[in-house]
Amino acid sequence: MAKFLDELKFGDDGLIPVVIQDAQTGEVLTVAYMNRDAVRLTFETGKTWFWRRRHQRLMMKGEHSGRVQLVREILVDCDADALVIKVEQVGGAACHEGYPSCFFRKVNPDGSLEVFQERVFDPNEVYGEKGEQG
Amino acid sequence: MAKFLDELKFGDDGLIPVVIQDAQTGEVLTVAYMNRDAVRLTFETGKTWFWRRRHQRLMMKGEHSGRVQLVREILVDCDADALVIKVEQVGGAACHEGYPSCFFRKVNPDGSLEVFQERVFDPNEVYGEKGEQG
Repeated sequence: MAKFLDELKFGDDGLIPVVIQDAQTGEVLTVAYMNRDAVRLTFETGKTWFWRRRHQRLMMKGEHSGRVQLVREILVDCDADALVIKVEQVGGAACHEGYPSCFFRKVNPDGSLEVFQERVFDPNEVYGEKGEQG
Repeated sequence: MAKFLDELKFGDDGLIPVVIQDAQTGEVLTVAYMNRDAVRLTFETGKTWFWRRRHQRLMMKGEHSGRVQLVREILVDCDADALVIKVEQVGGAACHEGYPSCFFRKVNPDGSLEVFQERVFDPNEVYGEKGEQG
């Protein structure tokens, strides 16, 4: 079924970088990594799956928090070594730190970093202090 | 000056993935890689610089084609291991294959790939058949 899988070029670590973008606003929510199984599951189930490097396992985004990402479109780049996946973000927050996007900080002209988004949820309440994030 | 540089986490290869996004439309143009010098030069010059893995050297985007990217905003993610850079793309095409975006193909429901953008320029005319791309 997922013929495009054979055209993708995964890195030496078996992973491909994936840009998760809000399908409506165009906001970049996350940059994450998928292995071949994660891409296949994402295509087949219509929800995003990632290879979580920190936990060294396959996880469906939102499996703990309920904040799943519903796939609207999958784009492939010229070198077939990166994906853009446009999603509908359930729960309005993609970042495990509670922000709408993982890119909640911007670089100021003086080179300092500034948080410019507001938290949607308190991560300690959702995941617990030592819980798995996702 | 570029204090945020010290907070970034570059990979074992010294690189950080960067999502280049059209500042006006939100379209993702490219996923590319920067080393520390490329990030610094991008911040200091206001134009994007990349570590081109294929050529193993630092290149300013557009140095051959004139299609430079003017930096409008730099965002940093929660883990400080990925960047989003919002740009104004000069010349209307970011991809060395002549398309507006490197993500000019989408996955169809049957798993096949389909080109959905139109070429803005003929890459052979711009770079020559064996020329460096950029």
